[in-house]
Amino acid sequence: MPVDVLSLVRKETPDMGEAVLDKNENPFSPPPALVEELRGRMASIPLNRYPDPTHESLREALGSFAGYPAGCVSVGNGGDEILSMLFSAFVSPGDSVLTLSPCFSQYGHLCRVQGARHVTVALGAAEKCFELDGELFLDTMARCSPKLILIDRPNNPTGCSVPLEMLRRIIDMSPCEVVVDEAYVDFGPDSVLDLYGPDSIPDNLLVLRTFSKAWGLAAIRLGWGVSSRRVVSRLEDVRSPYNVNCITREVALIALKYRQWHRDTTERIVYTRDRFLESLSGLQGWRAYEGNGNFVFARSPVPWELLDGALRREGFHLRRIPMPDHSDGDWVRISVGREEHMREMLGLLEKM
Amino acid sequence: MPVDVLSLVRKETPDMGEAVLDKNENPFSPPPALVEELRGRMASIPLNRYPDPTHESLREALGSFAGYPAGCVSVGNGGDEILSMLFSAFVSPGDSVLTLSPCFSQYGHLCRVQGARHVTVALGAAEKCFELDGELFLDTMARCSPKLILIDRPNNPTGCSVPLEMLRRIIDMSPCEVVVDEAYVDFGPDSVLDLYGPDSIPDNLLVLRTFSKAWGLAAIRLGWGVSSRRVVSRLEDVRSPYNVNCITREVALIALKYRQWHRDTTERIVYTRDRFLESLSGLQGWRAYEGNGNFVFARSPVPWELLDGALRREGFHLRRIPMPDHSDGDWVRISVGREEHMREMLGLLEKM
Repeated sequence: MPVDVLSLVRKETPDMGEAVLDKNENPFSPPPALVEELRGRMASIPLNRYPDPTHESLREALGSFAGYPAGCVSVGNGGDEILSMLFSAFVSPGDSVLTLSPCFSQYGHLCRVQGARHVTVALGAAEKCFELDGELFLDTMARCSPKLILIDRPNNPTGCSVPLEMLRRIIDMSPCEVVVDEAYVDFGPDSVLDLYGPDSIPDNLLVLRTFSKAWGLAAIRLGWGVSSRRVVSRLEDVRSPYNVNCITREVALIALKYRQWHRDTTERIVYTRDRFLESLSGLQGWRAYEGNGNFVFARSPVPWELLDGALRREGFHLRRIPMPDHSDGDWVRISVGREEHMREMLGLLEKM
Repeated sequence: MPVDVLSLVRKETPDMGEAVLDKNENPFSPPPALVEELRGRMASIPLNRYPDPTHESLREALGSFAGYPAGCVSVGNGGDEILSMLFSAFVSPGDSVLTLSPCFSQYGHLCRVQGARHVTVALGAAEKCFELDGELFLDTMARCSPKLILIDRPNNPTGCSVPLEMLRRIIDMSPCEVVVDEAYVDFGPDSVLDLYGPDSIPDNLLVLRTFSKAWGLAAIRLGWGVSSRRVVSRLEDVRSPYNVNCITREVALIALKYRQWHRDTTERIVYTRDRFLESLSGLQGWRAYEGNGNFVFARSPVPWELLDGALRREGFHLRRIPMPDHSDGDWVRISVGREEHMREMLGLLEKM
């Protein structure tokens, strides 16, 4: 099929949207059986009624999935809303918020909205992957007295994971709440929750999860947190009572039954990611880094405008990442799409 | 049917939930055709993709409904989120926020969350309805230099509407943004938008609307605002990009086609409200006030605990309203439910 026809098809048929590789979405739609089950339930959701403001059934189901009681679970309109609640609960104008650099762009946005000082510790580019200088992080933490620490693990966009033992030290020594944002946890080897259990979860820790990535449900906007009951209660103080809508709740309750789909899809994405990383690393001038997300972080030998222009014409959208601490070259984050699209893109990159 | 069997039926069958009269919900579910249309669309919503962050199609449809361009429309996860964005955009800790008293409880909550000073002007109980002393409001506004003014019109819980001409004076003389919260506008005779058009809407006005009341869609959580482009852009600065989910958008786009249902249902509720008010006013000791919402505000001759206990046993839930400025008696807000439930409740009140 000639390339321009392919672009046209992509634009006009929804199931070809997978060439959008700039949002770390899951390229696979949830199984049709899930959608069918949802369709079956639609008629029994009382649309004229507000959601249960305690979100009890949803918190119970999520808690049971994670091995925690409902009292340790918070839910939000996407992870974004839980982040926003954390800022409302713990950060005042002028306070310091400590994160990695680079990090999920929403952290900087929320610092600006709340009038907080955004303090960062730069990740370094090692041979194979990005790494945190843990001692530097602990020093910075001691110096800047943050009111909130946000660590995305795996980190977005580099894909690196702060080692669990270093994370434990940060949590132990932190003067404030530590949020470990595990939006991409399913694509990596471990979770900070592996360190703890319901009876030993630290009082200052919140682990953030989402249905937008491995669960393939970015459209419904559901984020959730696992934390001590103390943090849950601080978030309850600022939460809007009806923040998660009834249909999203229904979809999530159904989705939790499709764990095999979730596992299979995750495995498939990880496999494609690792093959893509290998091939990209073999391309002249490209420098790609190992990571634990559903994306690959790389330095491009082709200037961004050229790269973006050429790929967009073929229907591929990547994300450029500003790297103030690494001024050499143009950095891109490439979400892992379907196998055939990754192969096609590699072919295009090869010819540049 | 004996009363205890009726209670049992209410608890066990969802369509008997209408005796819940404490949330100002619409007692009527949206038409089955709407739900059927939604079921038909479910399979074509790409659940693995994030919503369009500009919400263009939704803002266009809402704007066209109100006679405004999409650029004057903001959308949120319920009216609650738009209120929350307004506080983020315009209110800093220590600032004053001016509202009526009583007013929608969320205003006070947001003042506490944001550390703002909540200044109120008490509504007075006149012969037939509650009224605002407009001059007192203008004086207070001049004295307290608010950073945000919130006027619920119709007011929740009294149902009264600040006269349009007074509202225009408040908007004209206000030193800050004025939010006219029209959650209940469909049950009353007019809207503040009647004063203006797309070319003359004041730069400091935001009119808040919702799908939770007359549209009968509290479950989906959709609020929207009509304002100057300047206010839209201030809200854009603080908005989370994916704040309205894809299914909610779909439901709203479908619902807007069912305008006749919306009109008929509203008319039916208004009719029931007016009959109920008349009957309640005729009951020994009750004092009920005329209002423009889907609820009736009244002073009960029966102490709250007794009233609530007796009604709850029969499956009726009302809302008690604290009235610090009117300490005499217990005040209740009664949402207008289905005709048969309002009649049944009147029968119970009569016997007390």
